Amino acid sequence: MIAELSSHRDPIVRALREIDLDLGPQLAEVNRWGDDLRARMLEFAGRGKLIRGALVAASAAAFGRPADRAVYTVAAAIELVQSFLLIHDDIMDEDALRRGAPALFEQYRRHAVEHGFRDERRFGESMAICAADVAILVVFAAIGSIDVEESVRVRLMSLLAREIAKVGVAQMADVANGHSPTPATEEEILAVYRFKTGRYTFSLPLMLGAILAGASSSTVDALCRWGELQGVVFQIRDDQLGIVGESDEIGKPAGSDIAADKQTLHRLVLCKVTAGTEWEDVCTFFGRDDLSPEEVRRVARALEATGARALLDRRISQLRSQAAREIASVELGDGARRLFDAIDAFNATRVV
Amino acid sequence: MIAELSSHRDPIVRALREIDLDLGPQLAEVNRWGDDLRARMLEFAGRGKLIRGALVAASAAAFGRPADRAVYTVAAAIELVQSFLLIHDDIMDEDALRRGAPALFEQYRRHAVEHGFRDERRFGESMAICAADVAILVVFAAIGSIDVEESVRVRLMSLLAREIAKVGVAQMADVANGHSPTPATEEEILAVYRFKTGRYTFSLPLMLGAILAGASSSTVDALCRWGELQGVVFQIRDDQLGIVGESDEIGKPAGSDIAADKQTLHRLVLCKVTAGTEWEDVCTFFGRDDLSPEEVRRVARALEATGARALLDRRISQLRSQAAREIASVELGDGARRLFDAIDAFNATRVV
Repeated sequence: MIAELSSHRDPIVRALREIDLDLGPQLAEVNRWGDDLRARMLEFAGRGKLIRGALVAASAAAFGRPADRAVYTVAAAIELVQSFLLIHDDIMDEDALRRGAPALFEQYRRHAVEHGFRDERRFGESMAICAADVAILVVFAAIGSIDVEESVRVRLMSLLAREIAKVGVAQMADVANGHSPTPATEEEILAVYRFKTGRYTFSLPLMLGAILAGASSSTVDALCRWGELQGVVFQIRDDQLGIVGESDEIGKPAGSDIAADKQTLHRLVLCKVTAGTEWEDVCTFFGRDDLSPEEVRRVARALEATGARALLDRRISQLRSQAAREIASVELGDGARRLFDAIDAFNATRVV
Repeated sequence: MIAELSSHRDPIVRALREIDLDLGPQLAEVNRWGDDLRARMLEFAGRGKLIRGALVAASAAAFGRPADRAVYTVAAAIELVQSFLLIHDDIMDEDALRRGAPALFEQYRRHAVEHGFRDERRFGESMAICAADVAILVVFAAIGSIDVEESVRVRLMSLLAREIAKVGVAQMADVANGHSPTPATEEEILAVYRFKTGRYTFSLPLMLGAILAGASSSTVDALCRWGELQGVVFQIRDDQLGIVGESDEIGKPAGSDIAADKQTLHRLVLCKVTAGTEWEDVCTFFGRDDLSPEEVRRVARALEATGARALLDRRISQLRSQAAREIASVELGDGARRLFDAIDAFNATRVV
């Protein structure tokens, strides 16, 4: 994605291995499932894009702390947070495929089938619930022993705990939106974007890096607000990709978010502006899994023709301006300025 | 249970409310599910026996720190750990009743039914997975802000993270024991007892209290070993109750652990010593849910007649002696001595 981030990938994978070497033996000591879990966790976390971890390292560097072992341990830890969330999410979504390989519950389900265990589906889900629980605890154990002042460790752990708790609550709304008979309101959709994407994917890694670099509280707070707004921009663009993106761009069939009836801002705006117009039919496409390529293209055309796309683009411009104002008063060095500009440009332009 | 512990109950309930007042608004800020969760979490945690929390407070006092706000916050936090574990356990066991009220997944399932949500069972389980995830994060957020030195907070959080990670791994074996076609070995059963009951229910609360009171590392380590052994004693006695206990003593039908085919040390020993004897039939009773009261009594008689009971009683004596040796070298004041004696006596004698 962003050029500044790719160099951090290998060191984060190494830090994941170091966390495993440090804490893994304590899990393996309990029983053979602990040993088995070490391998699965390392493989699962290392297979991600590691964007959040890279943002931790890039932020630390931007605020004057070149990425060292402590920084990469925190970067690796946030990737384990991501594993924790994804492993539980996959159970909730009954999504057996993750990152091109079987989801963790599916891995355990297959183990049950191979070894003649009873009720393999329940076994798979139960083991994956435990596995993710272990992952989030390893996160705190790992950060608890990094080589920085204890006050910094407390600050990192407290921030992480508070923010991931909010992600959990946002995820509850996401679950509810998928089960409720009434469509989500704009406010409900935006709350998921703010906390699940904004605060978690952007604010939190930037804040962790800044804290490691000794940034002031007011700077850290400004990053929080900036990241939240940038995350909403990212998410709106992501939803757009889910509707108008080509299969090879988005790694899943074109229009799959339409078929899945994802409760996005795009869907909400589109259904509002098409009501009573010649495009009204596109709103009925959502939730249908037999869409023709022509129907998928019609949704994309409706976005343009009704002005929904223009409306959402204006929304994005407003969010970016607001984000820029949030860090206007923050003393930023050239490195930090470059990083933030790169993220902002990426979020704004990744979709043509 | 133990007289020393009952006085801590009300202050722990108050500390749970204070944690909610401190951190709850941050959850409620995300969306209405956060607000809804606050009430459920407080009710769920407060309904427990609060034994682990009371042990934190009793241990702190025993090592010279009268229970104050910081101590009770940690005590309340470990009760939230317990909520986290139970909420996920109930999903795994498909146990809709907990502490005389609907399990959390069942509460959410009912919400789905009442509000016309799709796929109410999946909704209930998904929401409960999230709810417990939030609970464990609130634990770290709460301990992160108690009024003790930062080095103590780091020590408490690190210990908690490492130990609960091991509980998660022990739970995986417990799950596997319930699904596997091959009976658990003695080693597998004891690993669950050591980590799920011993280290978690006894060692951890005692260690947290001792750390809060400024006890030395060697004392804390000795408590760890003592608690692990005492927990195994407790669990063996608990399993005995599950087999020979009367309904009103154990709060569930007599013989229910036999019907549930729980992989206990009692079951393992009994099946070994009855093989080829006139009592051989009792081993086939395990896993049957149509046992007559006479059959349940026959299992209890077999335990006596075959010497299995005597064998397990000797095992308990050995564990208690070993536990006593573990703390023989520790400097213990009168208060600490009294507490440990009370726990030891309780674990040893709760079953007639």
